[in-house]
Amino acid sequence: MLTLVKCSDTMMLADGRGRTNGSVAAACVAGGAWRHMVGRIGSFARLIRSESLRGEFAYGAAGRTSIPSKSWLLLVMGREQMKRKLVWLLVLVSIVGLLAMSCAPEAAPPAEEGEGAPAPQEEEEEEEAPSQPAGETYTFKIQTSFDAANPAHIFGAKICDAVTAMSGGRLEFKAFTGGAIVPATKEMDAIDVGTIEGTYTCTMYNMDKWPEAGLFSARPGGLTAEAAPVWFQFYGTDFLNKMLEGYDVVAIPGICPQPPEIFAHSKVKIETVDDIKGLRMRTSGDGGEVMTRLGASVVFMPGGELYEAMQRGVIDAFEYASPSVDWAMSFQEIAKYVIFSATRAPSDPLVFYLNKSKYEALPDDLKAIVQHAVQSVTREQQMWLENDNIAAIKKFEDYGCELYHLPPDVERAIIDTASEFYAEKAAQESQLYKDILESQLSFSAAYNRQSALNTPNPS
Amino acid sequence: MLTLVKCSDTMMLADGRGRTNGSVAAACVAGGAWRHMVGRIGSFARLIRSESLRGEFAYGAAGRTSIPSKSWLLLVMGREQMKRKLVWLLVLVSIVGLLAMSCAPEAAPPAEEGEGAPAPQEEEEEEEAPSQPAGETYTFKIQTSFDAANPAHIFGAKICDAVTAMSGGRLEFKAFTGGAIVPATKEMDAIDVGTIEGTYTCTMYNMDKWPEAGLFSARPGGLTAEAAPVWFQFYGTDFLNKMLEGYDVVAIPGICPQPPEIFAHSKVKIETVDDIKGLRMRTSGDGGEVMTRLGASVVFMPGGELYEAMQRGVIDAFEYASPSVDWAMSFQEIAKYVIFSATRAPSDPLVFYLNKSKYEALPDDLKAIVQHAVQSVTREQQMWLENDNIAAIKKFEDYGCELYHLPPDVERAIIDTASEFYAEKAAQESQLYKDILESQLSFSAAYNRQSALNTPNPS
Repeated sequence: MLTLVKCSDTMMLADGRGRTNGSVAAACVAGGAWRHMVGRIGSFARLIRSESLRGEFAYGAAGRTSIPSKSWLLLVMGREQMKRKLVWLLVLVSIVGLLAMSCAPEAAPPAEEGEGAPAPQEEEEEEEAPSQPAGETYTFKIQTSFDAANPAHIFGAKICDAVTAMSGGRLEFKAFTGGAIVPATKEMDAIDVGTIEGTYTCTMYNMDKWPEAGLFSARPGGLTAEAAPVWFQFYGTDFLNKMLEGYDVVAIPGICPQPPEIFAHSKVKIETVDDIKGLRMRTSGDGGEVMTRLGASVVFMPGGELYEAMQRGVIDAFEYASPSVDWAMSFQEIAKYVIFSATRAPSDPLVFYLNKSKYEALPDDLKAIVQHAVQSVTREQQMWLENDNIAAIKKFEDYGCELYHLPPDVERAIIDTASEFYAEKAAQESQLYKDILESQLSFSAAYNRQSALNTPNPS
Repeated sequence: MLTLVKCSDTMMLADGRGRTNGSVAAACVAGGAWRHMVGRIGSFARLIRSESLRGEFAYGAAGRTSIPSKSWLLLVMGREQMKRKLVWLLVLVSIVGLLAMSCAPEAAPPAEEGEGAPAPQEEEEEEEAPSQPAGETYTFKIQTSFDAANPAHIFGAKICDAVTAMSGGRLEFKAFTGGAIVPATKEMDAIDVGTIEGTYTCTMYNMDKWPEAGLFSARPGGLTAEAAPVWFQFYGTDFLNKMLEGYDVVAIPGICPQPPEIFAHSKVKIETVDDIKGLRMRTSGDGGEVMTRLGASVVFMPGGELYEAMQRGVIDAFEYASPSVDWAMSFQEIAKYVIFSATRAPSDPLVFYLNKSKYEALPDDLKAIVQHAVQSVTREQQMWLENDNIAAIKKFEDYGCELYHLPPDVERAIIDTASEFYAEKAAQESQLYKDILESQLSFSAAYNRQSALNTPNPS
């Protein structure tokens, strides 16, 4: 009765360990509509081999199965056009998964295979069994990319503490500062080869590996701290994990956007686009490229040199971080103007990564603990930073600095220049790069529109 | 606060034999997207009869149910346009069903009909048995104040699921819809005396007990959806718990602010303060008081009556909820102008409360699990609502409505009137009331200042 279509030669149907037994709930495209079936993997595999079952296809393990209920496999054949349907399919497969989990334990009786045959079936069943025997414990080494005093490390360590506390020590996340085990910012390779199990870091530290990584960070003209978590939740984390394909690393949903950097601490007041021309400014990354295109004379130097460079007149202006950090650096003493605008560095998301294989091998309760710890603590960090920035802004004002918002036409020029820059880059980069950029642009336009409609603006 | 729409009088919700018990997995259209829920048939049937749950709707029996697992019922209300989605729903419901068959070992054999069977209730308890052997187990009944289809219930139930999953069943939070155990919105007394252990609710439902409760809700001129979580984290939850002193109830940190309501759906364009004078407007709460002071002729009526009242010319304008809910109510068909302003109802925070003694008696790992579940899932709800509102705004535009932001001087008038109103109230109320108001006013001034400095505003 099968009528599957849209052939693909590359389809496979087995779990990660190459096993092909057990029941699955499957869904596939037939006659233009998704059909679902429940049956044994082996029988599907036979159907595929015999070419009577081919098509765009996905499955998740059902109640009685030899696939560990964690390892949802989504096997999809090509076809861009199916993307929308796949969203639905994911919902479907997830529900199947949840049900399978909730009814896993009893599900075992392998009656169909014949009662006399305990064979390989049973061993696999045992793996499936209760996910939290009090016995097994795990230790994961997590190296952040930051110093001990940096809030980015402090909250990375809080994620670790939360996991350890919630699991009652069954899953211990040990936090290390950047450089403690492998060089700081080089954590992704170390996770891939298993030297460490995870990190909390900025995606831009990995632009050498993936040009796409830059888009997730402080992209000029990009997502604000309010919009970024929403985009990551519904789109961005999936893109991140697509970018990581081939690496044994997974990004866990939930980010801290780190609020906008101060546009510049400056000795001169910037009021027009012309004021940027010839400005000797310390900045970095794509934001530096944008400022260069606008006529600034851009240099880079480490944060620790900024105070003196301003005092000695080597530079006129610089960017560093957000108010709470910059106040601690005493920048109020060397620059009268504190210029705000979330155009150059609207947010700088921190992401929590784990070794994919080790994460996926965890029992379900521990996986849930990891997911909620990341979502919860990254939110706490965002709130902490916002609250602390409010306090710092007041300190700058009380000190006597002049704080102001970059005029609208200068912001326009920055955004337009950034748009040109990214359009040029996208033309040279991968399809994934283009897709990420397009997703961000359309999302932030919609988000900003909503935000503008809501934000009170009393005269 | 309801989300289901597209009424149909022909809906029924019972299996073929007219029984209305047992759990069901249901899916329905709310806010333009399919939602799924699991609950007892009886409660859904009541919701439909009470007209609080209406819409395009389908369900299939879930794992534990008195409906023979084969008799899938698909109950669909009208609307050609939904057909495509229904195909998906069928797939989903069918898979739920097939799984229910395959993993309902106790339920499947026709035991229920004969055998003088052991009360089905008991079976449920057994199946539920904790999978984690270690230590004591706990069961908390959590009744939200909302219907099964309301995102406020759905995410309340997700908090419960997260706690149960992370604890491996050692701490089971059982979610109930509003009214399932005690009357909806009356949960706080029930927690205090121990009838239930917790709730997820709006604080304003308890203004009869504590006038302060109104300040935490949709206060005109109050905290926006971005600012509210930060204020609650650092100040508000402490105030809430101070308010609750003497009650055996504790507010757990982490809220969902629920984004701003639409200021009004209107037949007339509101461009000046004078346009409000004589406007026959449906609104409620303190926002209604503010609009009355500005000259509107304010009436109140339930959401279900708004469509017809506008059609018959009984009212000129009304407020209800945020875009995703209001689109689902078909308000685009009866009001050309969709007017935005987060001044009247800037946010409407949902808070998770527990019985204080029972919460404090939990071991530390379970307390940590509760805290992170609340923080994590309320964040997910906020993101979900924001993303869904973006989609709904586009639908209103595509439909041909005129969307605009209330002019600045009208917003000024609303904020000033609200300030007067609250100053008068504060003069009559407790010191705690004054302290909360003062904390909110100073925090939101600082937050808005920071936000204005950062928000890009290109010309």
